[in-house]
Amino acid sequence: MAVRTQKGPPVTQGTMWAMEKSAPGPGLTRITAPIPNAGPKDVRIRVTAFAICGTDLHIVEWDRWAESRIRPPLIPGHEFTGIVESVGSEVALVRPGDRVTGETHIYCGLCYACRRGLLHLCKNVQILGVDRQGAFADFVVIPEQNVWKLDPKIPEEIAAVHDPLGNAVHTALAGPVAGLRFAVFGCGPIGCFAVGVLKSAGAAWVAAVDKNPIRLELAERMGADKLLHVERDAVVRSILDATGGDGVDGMLEMSGSAGALRDGFEVLANGGRVSLLGIPSKPLEIDVAKEIIFRGATVQGINGRWIFDTWYRMEALLLSGKLDIRPVITHVLGWDDFNQAVELQRSGKAGKIVLVRDRR
Amino acid sequence: MAVRTQKGPPVTQGTMWAMEKSAPGPGLTRITAPIPNAGPKDVRIRVTAFAICGTDLHIVEWDRWAESRIRPPLIPGHEFTGIVESVGSEVALVRPGDRVTGETHIYCGLCYACRRGLLHLCKNVQILGVDRQGAFADFVVIPEQNVWKLDPKIPEEIAAVHDPLGNAVHTALAGPVAGLRFAVFGCGPIGCFAVGVLKSAGAAWVAAVDKNPIRLELAERMGADKLLHVERDAVVRSILDATGGDGVDGMLEMSGSAGALRDGFEVLANGGRVSLLGIPSKPLEIDVAKEIIFRGATVQGINGRWIFDTWYRMEALLLSGKLDIRPVITHVLGWDDFNQAVELQRSGKAGKIVLVRDRR
Amino acid sequence: MAVRTQKGPPVTQGTMWAMEKSAPGPGLTRITAPIPNAGPKDVRIRVTAFAICGTDLHIVEWDRWAESRIRPPLIPGHEFTGIVESVGSEVALVRPGDRVTGETHIYCGLCYACRRGLLHLCKNVQILGVDRQGAFADFVVIPEQNVWKLDPKIPEEIAAVHDPLGNAVHTALAGPVAGLRFAVFGCGPIGCFAVGVLKSAGAAWVAAVDKNPIRLELAERMGADKLLHVERDAVVRSILDATGGDGVDGMLEMSGSAGALRDGFEVLANGGRVSLLGIPSKPLEIDVAKEIIFRGATVQGINGRWIFDTWYRMEALLLSGKLDIRPVITHVLGWDDFNQAVELQRSGKAGKIVLVRDRR
Amino acid sequence: MAVRTQKGPPVTQGTMWAMEKSAPGPGLTRITAPIPNAGPKDVRIRVTAFAICGTDLHIVEWDRWAESRIRPPLIPGHEFTGIVESVGSEVALVRPGDRVTGETHIYCGLCYACRRGLLHLCKNVQILGVDRQGAFADFVVIPEQNVWKLDPKIPEEIAAVHDPLGNAVHTALAGPVAGLRFAVFGCGPIGCFAVGVLKSAGAAWVAAVDKNPIRLELAERMGADKLLHVERDAVVRSILDATGGDGVDGMLEMSGSAGALRDGFEVLANGGRVSLLGIPSKPLEIDVAKEIIFRGATVQGINGRWIFDTWYRMEALLLSGKLDIRPVITHVLGWDDFNQAVELQRSGKAGKIVLVRDRR
Repeated sequence: MAVRTQKGPPVTQGTMWAMEKSAPGPGLTRITAPIPNAGPKDVRIRVTAFAICGTDLHIVEWDRWAESRIRPPLIPGHEFTGIVESVGSEVALVRPGDRVTGETHIYCGLCYACRRGLLHLCKNVQILGVDRQGAFADFVVIPEQNVWKLDPKIPEEIAAVHDPLGNAVHTALAGPVAGLRFAVFGCGPIGCFAVGVLKSAGAAWVAAVDKNPIRLELAERMGADKLLHVERDAVVRSILDATGGDGVDGMLEMSGSAGALRDGFEVLANGGRVSLLGIPSKPLEIDVAKEIIFRGATVQGINGRWIFDTWYRMEALLLSGKLDIRPVITHVLGWDDFNQAVELQRSGKAGKIVLVRDRR
Repeated sequence: MAVRTQKGPPVTQGTMWAMEKSAPGPGLTRITAPIPNAGPKDVRIRVTAFAICGTDLHIVEWDRWAESRIRPPLIPGHEFTGIVESVGSEVALVRPGDRVTGETHIYCGLCYACRRGLLHLCKNVQILGVDRQGAFADFVVIPEQNVWKLDPKIPEEIAAVHDPLGNAVHTALAGPVAGLRFAVFGCGPIGCFAVGVLKSAGAAWVAAVDKNPIRLELAERMGADKLLHVERDAVVRSILDATGGDGVDGMLEMSGSAGALRDGFEVLANGGRVSLLGIPSKPLEIDVAKEIIFRGATVQGINGRWIFDTWYRMEALLLSGKLDIRPVITHVLGWDDFNQAVELQRSGKAGKIVLVRDRR
Repeated sequence: MAVRTQKGPPVTQGTMWAMEKSAPGPGLTRITAPIPNAGPKDVRIRVTAFAICGTDLHIVEWDRWAESRIRPPLIPGHEFTGIVESVGSEVALVRPGDRVTGETHIYCGLCYACRRGLLHLCKNVQILGVDRQGAFADFVVIPEQNVWKLDPKIPEEIAAVHDPLGNAVHTALAGPVAGLRFAVFGCGPIGCFAVGVLKSAGAAWVAAVDKNPIRLELAERMGADKLLHVERDAVVRSILDATGGDGVDGMLEMSGSAGALRDGFEVLANGGRVSLLGIPSKPLEIDVAKEIIFRGATVQGINGRWIFDTWYRMEALLLSGKLDIRPVITHVLGWDDFNQAVELQRSGKAGKIVLVRDRR
Repeated sequence: MAVRTQKGPPVTQGTMWAMEKSAPGPGLTRITAPIPNAGPKDVRIRVTAFAICGTDLHIVEWDRWAESRIRPPLIPGHEFTGIVESVGSEVALVRPGDRVTGETHIYCGLCYACRRGLLHLCKNVQILGVDRQGAFADFVVIPEQNVWKLDPKIPEEIAAVHDPLGNAVHTALAGPVAGLRFAVFGCGPIGCFAVGVLKSAGAAWVAAVDKNPIRLELAERMGADKLLHVERDAVVRSILDATGGDGVDGMLEMSGSAGALRDGFEVLANGGRVSLLGIPSKPLEIDVAKEIIFRGATVQGINGRWIFDTWYRMEALLLSGKLDIRPVITHVLGWDDFNQAVELQRSGKAGKIVLVRDRR
């Protein structure tokens, strides 16, 4: 197999390394797959690093959601970075050799949402590694419209996690931040990223809530002012006390947990905002009258990233040095360590794990 | 001491007609009460007309909410109009003889919400007729800060319902309206008012949903483009069909019903807004992932009215002739018809019922 | 090669009728031009009607602006409607036979503005009939991304003026409208359209200001509540009096006149918005301290139309019957009447003039 | 003269130290003035420190603006801090002994602006030290509604400059900041404060522009990423180069200079915001078409501070350590050094100068 970047001769239609959900059921299989074809508007990227998202774990474990959504065979993976290997005939800006990552919501551009600029809410969205072949492979193909060119100063392991970091930026910056107080429920990687984004954006005080001490420690390293352990601490009381009884101006829900949402509303100041990113596994009971209506709350469903407003702001925060997410990237492994990475992530003993090709 | 109103005979510091919740349990009692005293910042108003709110029905019926919130003896009533009879020593603008109504959220002006201009979300709010003596009486006392002077061209029965009309204005205008499509769930008086406000504000299409044909007919008279009966019509299908599958840009929930909220989310376009005013009687189950997060919805808890931004806009809509709410005011009765009005309202065979003193 | 439109005879790759600025200097020339070629992403439209914009008059008259911007030979024209005759190989949604009009800001999709959704502010924008061949011709070519499909219920003469009507919708809806008071300075076609949009969107009161009685009459027919003649009326005094001394909540500047801007600020309520669409021919003197800073004004530069948010809302206002712009379309002529239309428009005795091919 | 705070016996109606504009013409006079009376809603504050604003310099120098606005005799001064000495009979929250400063826009609460929450744009505003007796004195009287209680952790010299710092917070936070790029024109104390606020709020890049090297150095100490000297540097070119030709997302005008406004527009990205706080001494010529309309700019007139939203956020930024304005406070002098302070400030060799009573 001969794969080349820009300078060499053309790529042959060969085969590649990939991790695949080959059939319904748990686990992924290490396969040799055909290198994917790219259409005239597409860009084919040689993946150099990727990360495993919570969504990927659901696919690996084959839970109810995965069963209902995923149609094997599928190569998962949507957090990645790489080098452009080739571009379609109608690609305008991207060139072979460009160092890139990508927006993983592949939007149609034609629906009511897209035509009004809400590309991240496209009604016909295809998600990389969920609805089409993903990035746990030597090569991934995405349309040029979804490519984000990386500044050379962005380190590889940060480039690989622009997708979840973008979620955090989108969520945190979905309302005013500077000089305001926040609570972040759920300190997985996106929650920790969000703590960092809030602090870089001038949040005056951020409480981080989780039940995993390792994650709370990561949140602290990202700048959280108050760490609250769901089981050991009186979460609601502590936050109300710390805010003089007023509650926080904003609540970011990054856990999908029923209890977090309940506590989150309890600590919200009247007129505050609630930004929901964490996906609950089932419908939740909400005391709409007390928590939303009488409180005058604004509850925002957050999905993906603004294309590309979120990306510009994310890049600027990173390059300015305002935002440093390296504490959350606890492990950098090689592609052959894939199963170990899955185990580590499942264990809750890691922040974000990036898998780099060169360490294979 | 003889205190005079502008036109009528002198008021003695005597007694007055009132309807009172004298003790826990159903019903109100017709009493002769002492005329309430007014402090230096207060305005005492001779009530000329009032209306009965859904909240008042809860108090009359003594349901669980009433039991938990109301401390008898209490004179209920917060939808009213009247003539200023006397003013406290520090009252600046309001004069005896002024024709007025009032904002019924009596705000403290000192809490975190108030000090940032969110007066309608005051943490120490006292609601007239709920937390303090209300307007089902010859006289009611409110602070000057809550008084709204009426333009002479506003008819009496409309003056009496500025409170619920203001709820509708606040809800409908909580986001862009012109050239957009809406669904209003719940066609009680506020829902019907909201249909009218939406249409006056340029809504391109408004579906009205209820299970009461009389209410649906009122919604139609307020301008609804599509009437949907919850039990007889395929609500979700009809709205999606009428919007080319996109769904509505905004959903106003004015019923407090679990089914309405569920259907309301189903018909919402991606990125749409949900404005919640109807008070559910208990916590509701919401499929947060599907309905709010993936839809990118913004859910607003709506409470009271912006003080006085909502009022200025309400008045302007009324005076310009853009908004005519008279179809919803189906009955004008006298104060002695109080019990009949309660029955009529309970029956669902009325829109808004205004009780005028002069018909007593 | 024979390319067919839906109904007519086959189009040869031949020649077509067009009005051209053939060389620097006043006037346009009636020419026989080659039918324009279309690229793979383009749509070729058989024009059925067009209108003459103020910009076109500048080009005809060859004023200083035209001299600096236009590179003859050029076919002007950007307000048009027609039937799709053929589509490029990569066109996805548009089909021959579709009845369409187009967004005339042809955006690059790649610049900082475009990539954040501000397509109408594209840094590399090409304007149809200004920077590239326009629509005063049998055929016009635009990229599919700029095509707007028309609802069959939209009449031909209204379809032809979606571009200027979209300007008016964009300007009027650039802030809250319902229950607020406005002044519109300049009652050319766009100003008159804006009066109609404001009223359809619930504006409580709209003053229309111009020095041309014919235009003021058109503004009245579009719903203006107060007509003010710049020379005969005390504009500022009248508006302040009518608003109780508070001034208007919003001012729309559609004339480009220095005096209008000056008066417009004078009648603006503190905290009001100023939406500027009219293009002044030279820099203007503004008392920034008094008019903008102390007044707490927000001044918006308005350009083009939101793509396609403005278009959806415009269509919905038209189809709902909320907005009827026919009073402003004072003349419908044939293409052979082009010079007469120019004269008529110059004279100020017309509103909008639409030129229909079939009347040729 | 015996003046006491809370613990001691009552204050006698004695006399006090003050600096007064006794008659039209340049200079202030050191006088012994009667201690001002306080009404029932007022708070009398024993001033412990104050600062001299640019406005105060205009009054001292008696320029055209001062001549037109000021009615001597007047004690100027509106940047101050102190201890509450006594309160009127209707004062609710403030107590003798409270350490406070005050919002200097004394609003009526009754006008159209105030009744819609735009207190800082009150049409009947009285400015302390301009329209009524100010704070260059032992005592100053303001209504309770304007009092801001200070957290004990706020240092004295920072407490004394909450008014201008609040201007900077209001201006900087008048739109999104995090991850965006800015230019600040004018590096007087408020401009330097604004640089600090922008950086604390996550601005990715801030250019500071002035012609005074001392001020540029202060801007650098507040975090400016790029310093540009108006005469020595190619301001426009440098900013466009540093932003890849796109320009800045926001421009803050803090100088009132015609050239700054002109350059500021030139470096603004399409769709950017311009926040104007600096007061030009005369009307300015603006190329409205090019700079505002085609650019799609939003120009905001900024006045005072949001009451008290700006104050809460300012306090939170200070207490969290996100914002440290001490580099800008270059001198702390005593009250007897008043004339020296005026000279120093006029010379441009100082940042902010605070005058502390105890150093008298």
